[in-house]
Amino acid sequence: MMNLGFIGLGAMGRPMALNLLGAGHALSVFARHPGRAQPLLEAGATPAASPFAVAQMVDVLFLNVSDDAEVESVLFGPQSAAAGLRGDSVVVDMGTTSPTATRRFAARLAEQGVAWLDAPVSGGEAGAKAATLSIMVGGSEATFTRVLPLFQVMGKHIVHVGDSGAGQVAKACNQIAVSATLLGVAEALTFARKQGVNADKVRSALLGGSAYSRILEVHGQRMLTHDFTPGFRARLHQKDMGIVLEEARQANVAVPSAALAGQMLNALVAAGAGELDSSALVTVLERLAGLEA
Amino acid sequence: MMNLGFIGLGAMGRPMALNLLGAGHALSVFARHPGRAQPLLEAGATPAASPFAVAQMVDVLFLNVSDDAEVESVLFGPQSAAAGLRGDSVVVDMGTTSPTATRRFAARLAEQGVAWLDAPVSGGEAGAKAATLSIMVGGSEATFTRVLPLFQVMGKHIVHVGDSGAGQVAKACNQIAVSATLLGVAEALTFARKQGVNADKVRSALLGGSAYSRILEVHGQRMLTHDFTPGFRARLHQKDMGIVLEEARQANVAVPSAALAGQMLNALVAAGAGELDSSALVTVLERLAGLEA
Amino acid sequence: MMNLGFIGLGAMGRPMALNLLGAGHALSVFARHPGRAQPLLEAGATPAASPFAVAQMVDVLFLNVSDDAEVESVLFGPQSAAAGLRGDSVVVDMGTTSPTATRRFAARLAEQGVAWLDAPVSGGEAGAKAATLSIMVGGSEATFTRVLPLFQVMGKHIVHVGDSGAGQVAKACNQIAVSATLLGVAEALTFARKQGVNADKVRSALLGGSAYSRILEVHGQRMLTHDFTPGFRARLHQKDMGIVLEEARQANVAVPSAALAGQMLNALVAAGAGELDSSALVTVLERLAGLEA
Amino acid sequence: MMNLGFIGLGAMGRPMALNLLGAGHALSVFARHPGRAQPLLEAGATPAASPFAVAQMVDVLFLNVSDDAEVESVLFGPQSAAAGLRGDSVVVDMGTTSPTATRRFAARLAEQGVAWLDAPVSGGEAGAKAATLSIMVGGSEATFTRVLPLFQVMGKHIVHVGDSGAGQVAKACNQIAVSATLLGVAEALTFARKQGVNADKVRSALLGGSAYSRILEVHGQRMLTHDFTPGFRARLHQKDMGIVLEEARQANVAVPSAALAGQMLNALVAAGAGELDSSALVTVLERLAGLEA
Repeated sequence: MMNLGFIGLGAMGRPMALNLLGAGHALSVFARHPGRAQPLLEAGATPAASPFAVAQMVDVLFLNVSDDAEVESVLFGPQSAAAGLRGDSVVVDMGTTSPTATRRFAARLAEQGVAWLDAPVSGGEAGAKAATLSIMVGGSEATFTRVLPLFQVMGKHIVHVGDSGAGQVAKACNQIAVSATLLGVAEALTFARKQGVNADKVRSALLGGSAYSRILEVHGQRMLTHDFTPGFRARLHQKDMGIVLEEARQANVAVPSAALAGQMLNALVAAGAGELDSSALVTVLERLAGLEA
Repeated sequence: MMNLGFIGLGAMGRPMALNLLGAGHALSVFARHPGRAQPLLEAGATPAASPFAVAQMVDVLFLNVSDDAEVESVLFGPQSAAAGLRGDSVVVDMGTTSPTATRRFAARLAEQGVAWLDAPVSGGEAGAKAATLSIMVGGSEATFTRVLPLFQVMGKHIVHVGDSGAGQVAKACNQIAVSATLLGVAEALTFARKQGVNADKVRSALLGGSAYSRILEVHGQRMLTHDFTPGFRARLHQKDMGIVLEEARQANVAVPSAALAGQMLNALVAAGAGELDSSALVTVLERLAGLEA
Repeated sequence: MMNLGFIGLGAMGRPMALNLLGAGHALSVFARHPGRAQPLLEAGATPAASPFAVAQMVDVLFLNVSDDAEVESVLFGPQSAAAGLRGDSVVVDMGTTSPTATRRFAARLAEQGVAWLDAPVSGGEAGAKAATLSIMVGGSEATFTRVLPLFQVMGKHIVHVGDSGAGQVAKACNQIAVSATLLGVAEALTFARKQGVNADKVRSALLGGSAYSRILEVHGQRMLTHDFTPGFRARLHQKDMGIVLEEARQANVAVPSAALAGQMLNALVAAGAGELDSSALVTVLERLAGLEA
Repeated sequence: MMNLGFIGLGAMGRPMALNLLGAGHALSVFARHPGRAQPLLEAGATPAASPFAVAQMVDVLFLNVSDDAEVESVLFGPQSAAAGLRGDSVVVDMGTTSPTATRRFAARLAEQGVAWLDAPVSGGEAGAKAATLSIMVGGSEATFTRVLPLFQVMGKHIVHVGDSGAGQVAKACNQIAVSATLLGVAEALTFARKQGVNADKVRSALLGGSAYSRILEVHGQRMLTHDFTPGFRARLHQKDMGIVLEEARQANVAVPSAALAGQMLNALVAAGAGELDSSALVTVLERLAGLEA
């Protein structure tokens, strides 16, 4: 049993805190909107009057508040948690906070001997309730090991990505890939509807192949190792995008992310990579970022 | 045993034709570059001198040539296949051809009683060899049923999407979704590298969650049924994109498709959908396409 | 006085043909929709029954039809112009046709000794009526010189850009720059409205500075000579785009082309060019195109 | 003669402050890097030890520092200007600051009776030296009138856009339009080079027409009044973008902003506006922003 604190009891934080409580730990909570703490108090949590008051009671303090400014306010604002934390305690930020602010918070807490983990999650409200969240963790190996059993009470797929901030970088990467993929899928299904084709059948056709759902796994691996043996040649992918853009124009349907990807494929072929697998697209992005191959 | 023909013996067509031959069918082939037919001839295929000559011998004629113009030339050019085809035969185009040209070809062949299937594939050269291709089929139900046993010799996941052209629409949708997803994954991994974070660990973090690899399955379904119960609220996704774009700027890394997706999320929230699941992004695209909800 | 022909009497072609007639030339016309020729006939033009019939009568044949396929049909289809043209005549295509098809048409006509100019225009219907069109011309110097007096009857700003196809390349460049600029202006005015600021005042503020309306002139020149002495430093422009994207997010307004430009500025600074004028953006595009500096 | 203060003596601020001094006003300056003040002191400015010290001496305090955080620090940080300002004084922020932070600064100063103008500029270092800057001003009419003579010493085109923050909104709009236009021009010139056409001639062709350089003026006006009488029909513009995208693909050149604009034109035509002037593109953006027509 450990003494835990939780600040930030919204739609995500509440079920996560309940899971910690359900695992037999003592839990102190602070909520700016007191009604939000109610389900926790009924389940046995101890109310505290301020971040400072929570901090005084705990080994590990979890945060799940809404943005950088709120993390800063809870940690270093009036009646701050930082003022109450013991030197060997840990702060674990499970919200989505910017990597830059994260590194600053970790450094300030380190000055007073408090350890830090950034541990943003994916999996949504359903995952928080079912304790099946993915948790991406930044911070020292030792601190990660210490808190891991608590993460295992809240989630299922837990990866220690690197030093402080690395968890938030992974979350940002997640949002980059997810938003682009959502947009691509939305464009595909809308294109089908506009062409008068059953979008459900199109989804089945794409799904069944399994190729699509393994892009991060298979093509992502190629991107990491720069092994671009085809696979599907960039030159042919580029040719197909010609069909896509021309049909989109004739059918009056906007496919902005596909149009953009088409331009990046033009750049890939311009670089002489037409016979490589189209996952070599990552080299175009790397050059734009000023990274060496 | 059926009498089959195959025209277009490139990196994809050759292994597909070999699989048909291996299933015990008689196969006539025509290749503009005669060397390409060699492996087929050694395996028992019959050479033919022209598309016309192939067509005269077959029940089903498969095409896998490089673009619209070549399909047109094979079917209707000099020594054309169309002139040789019997009235109850079928042409199956397994290359990637534009839906618009496809519908035109199907209509022209129908005038002489020849049936049509467009049946583009995904799965790459490896899938062609292993007979694990996904095949997306457009054409009549009856013709699909007739050719299905032959598709099963070449592929594993075979979906009859709709009428002539619908297979090519599905393929275009596949390329829209795949290209956007590839670009998103490439941006995510490049962002990680530029931030000095282990991109392999980031990939693991995203993969393990399984959420990412199920976007087409889970979010795609929400998009089809317009059931946008969160899930992950658009408003929160939009907030996270603010972090992504600001960190990308500070780290000097270009994330064009994420930037675009961020703008579409702005539009989604502007439409009053901030509390819906972010897969409601499809409604922005639908409005741009002039489709009713 | 010359014997001229004109095929393609739509909203643009009709006033252009009237201006040629008004300059005292003999003009034969062919219109697929005969009603369209009426104003020309009333003004003294001679009707012809086919492209072939027009071609037989003229020194210079002007085309202004709707797309590549129609140019091809008029020139080389049934009762074609090509069959009627004399060896020392000239075809001048004033519509917007693809550079690739243009080069093909020019080459085919050259085989029979007929000269070619591609001469697409900008300026819209008003410019066609007022004879103030801009005309971008591709073809040989000699042919350009021969037809120039006729161009001067229809337009005001006439540039001989290069060989056959170069006029159409210039027109494509025009459409690239115009569409991107229109989108940028539309985003700017929409951003102002969404922020509750008088968009008319904003337009005045941007206009008066004259800097904006001289981007092609001033920054375009820097792009051509690669003289990137600031001016306005890329690093500062990038910083400002951070404000733009964050405010757009907070105000729920989509600025897709500005978001894209922001990513390209990230790439420019990543390449070490932060202290150069932001017109150095062209170097990012040149690298994407595989062009040497 | 007025008592003026200037804080922020970088590449832009220094010549602006020299112009104020040259007009005969008393000028106190504070520079964190004392060397930067040297040219001002030699020209007769009075050095001050802190923002507070400057503020105590002045009627109008000009700021030109690098970002929101620095404006906040100068105004409200240690030895702050706000603590030294008299109740009837004015703060004029001539740097580029976010509209949101601007409104907050203005409100805080108003509590102590200090007036505010946000007055960002365009025109670059050359414009600052030549006193030909464009100045976009937000704040009350009375304060604007009071400071106008000082603006006239630094710039040439001065527009009072609206209340506090409106000047910064106009500046953001400027950066939206300028960045998109720069990108479009860069794409156009790169497209020309990749097609082997003289980019200088292309620039001349586009320039001379004057249509291009008047897009903000002419099309911007149409966007404001929603008078979309063509002009150039969206349907035709969309058709031309088909040529652009196909030629870009064949020539392996990336035109990302043109590709995006093409998609927005698809949306415009999908909305039934194909026969309107293509400046109706603004309606697509307005719908995305949730604005009524």
